[in-house]
Amino acid sequence: MRTIEWVPEKNIVKMIDQRVLPHEESWLEFDDSREVAEAIRGMVIRGAPAIGVAAAFGMVLAAQQSRASTHDDLLRDLRAAHDVLYAARPTAVNLRWGLERMMQCASHLTTETLDETRARLLREAQRIADEDVQINQTMGAHGARLLPRQANVLHHCNTGGLATVDWGTALGVIRSAHEQGKGIHVFVDETRPRLQGARLTAWELMQWGVPMTLIADNAAGYYMLNGQVDAVLVGADRIAANGDTVNKIGTYKLAATAKDSNIPFYVVAPTSTIDLRTLTGKEIPIEERDPREVTHPDDDPRGIAPEGVQVGNPAFDITPHRLITAIITEYGPIYPPFDETLLPVVERAAADRRAGRVVSPEDVLHE
Amino acid sequence: MRTIEWVPEKNIVKMIDQRVLPHEESWLEFDDSREVAEAIRGMVIRGAPAIGVAAAFGMVLAAQQSRASTHDDLLRDLRAAHDVLYAARPTAVNLRWGLERMMQCASHLTTETLDETRARLLREAQRIADEDVQINQTMGAHGARLLPRQANVLHHCNTGGLATVDWGTALGVIRSAHEQGKGIHVFVDETRPRLQGARLTAWELMQWGVPMTLIADNAAGYYMLNGQVDAVLVGADRIAANGDTVNKIGTYKLAATAKDSNIPFYVVAPTSTIDLRTLTGKEIPIEERDPREVTHPDDDPRGIAPEGVQVGNPAFDITPHRLITAIITEYGPIYPPFDETLLPVVERAAADRRAGRVVSPEDVLHE
Repeated sequence: MRTIEWVPEKNIVKMIDQRVLPHEESWLEFDDSREVAEAIRGMVIRGAPAIGVAAAFGMVLAAQQSRASTHDDLLRDLRAAHDVLYAARPTAVNLRWGLERMMQCASHLTTETLDETRARLLREAQRIADEDVQINQTMGAHGARLLPRQANVLHHCNTGGLATVDWGTALGVIRSAHEQGKGIHVFVDETRPRLQGARLTAWELMQWGVPMTLIADNAAGYYMLNGQVDAVLVGADRIAANGDTVNKIGTYKLAATAKDSNIPFYVVAPTSTIDLRTLTGKEIPIEERDPREVTHPDDDPRGIAPEGVQVGNPAFDITPHRLITAIITEYGPIYPPFDETLLPVVERAAADRRAGRVVSPEDVLHE
Repeated sequence: MRTIEWVPEKNIVKMIDQRVLPHEESWLEFDDSREVAEAIRGMVIRGAPAIGVAAAFGMVLAAQQSRASTHDDLLRDLRAAHDVLYAARPTAVNLRWGLERMMQCASHLTTETLDETRARLLREAQRIADEDVQINQTMGAHGARLLPRQANVLHHCNTGGLATVDWGTALGVIRSAHEQGKGIHVFVDETRPRLQGARLTAWELMQWGVPMTLIADNAAGYYMLNGQVDAVLVGADRIAANGDTVNKIGTYKLAATAKDSNIPFYVVAPTSTIDLRTLTGKEIPIEERDPREVTHPDDDPRGIAPEGVQVGNPAFDITPHRLITAIITEYGPIYPPFDETLLPVVERAAADRRAGRVVSPEDVLHE
């Protein structure tokens, strides 16, 4: 199953509706790039890598919708679609990354017919999607090496197949370790306010047959101090040049607690999540979301708080680089000092992309 | 308003039903000590000081219910009621403290008639309740001194009038500072899984007119790292002789994060919460509660997780003494090293109790 997929027979993109899981497994179809932007904003699809791919397919739809008769007009329409998609959510850099990759592809294609350009854009989006799966499995192979046998792992939010095209980032590492027979058990943070852990991660782990225990976010420290957690694994929405990592709200508390309890804290993210244009975490915009996410968990109409209560609902926080043991990418774990170690890996990824190379789990085996 | 109160006209004890706040303000009446134990277990009443007082009134009801014709028989019936009440919840030491005070009172009264004994037990329970309010206001006066003007305070769970007889412990400090015109603003952790922050603390602060912002527990770190929190204030269910503090689940994560963000972390608790018979936090039993508290927030029948999910639900955690800036009692703040500083304060409290003295907010003014 892929979270997001192109349907060639219909020329549309379909996505599983993550707002209604695990109660319902429902698929939505999109033929309009603006609706894709709305789906990203409304969290039909979420997770940094997944929204990068959704934005790429949104650009394919924009190219199809465009009535341009010249390349310049098509590029203008694509730029307009780019801006709408870019504004959908501010924090995850993969959105920008996916959009820029599509714009680059389009602007290099001026010698082809417009329909050839449309076809090339579709192939580029599909390539981004396929690469995402392969990159995740490669990260999984790298990360699994860091986990001891019988490891108890603590995981925040959802970083599984649903946060990507398939396999996952932090949860992909867990899946890889599980498939290697390492006997992994996962403490699953429910991840208030949107409950991605309880709704999505628990659902995925149960489907994969990975032993797990769902806990309130507050309980993570209990198990950590008790010596019951061997590693904390999280994803990322954006990693600054110095290693500061912006991820789902609550990540910083986990990292500070892991440090206090002497537990390794791993960020698992593809190089596309590293944003060298952002020097430190403080420069990364933090999205403030609807107060109803806090006052009405899982959209329960009764609400849990007094009427008219004032609410703060930042969707992400910054984990300072000093709290991160390693950042696990498709090129393996990167260790501090991140302001020196991130750059060469990002350059290697750019070189590989120019050469059309994509790392694979087999590379890890042969290392 | 008192959370728990004796109704002399009916010879019953009444409590506000904290399970249905803030949706409903409903009062329950009890004439049976076993039902009081059930109310404590089911969290009709919760909060360490409040359940100590509830247990004391439970003993009054047991004395009324007893058909004993001799003091020895009455003491036997009281011992049986003691055991049932004691088993209601394992973690908060105030339950044991309230019960032991009532048993001590009863065992000293062998020269009186049984009805005189019953009346003396009622007076003792009422004294415990009255003292609780006065002690809380005294803690409030001490604690308010530690908060700067315009302080932003972060608060976990509910430690207000509802967790005590009236006023509160940590929330009592906030109330005292607010009434002194200090311009306090409170970040209110919602406190999953039972949501005492969203349901009870928000309700109390709004009634008192204290400016506040309700947040998901995960968001606390965001505001702390941002420099928007001047102090963290929490209550306690039991404090060991070395200062290790057991409190509502999530407290340890807050303390570790406060340390990482260089924010003072205060525990506010009466000396009755200090248990010198427990040497370290590891000896304190941690209650594991119903998985439905996690999977069905606010008892929403739909649930937030897949059917059949495995759940961990510890109700409390241990905050190591090294993370605590000070423990604020009715005798003022106690600073580390707690294994030296707690004992003299507990001894002073015992001496005051023997002498029939209770500290008051005026004592703080004259200090």
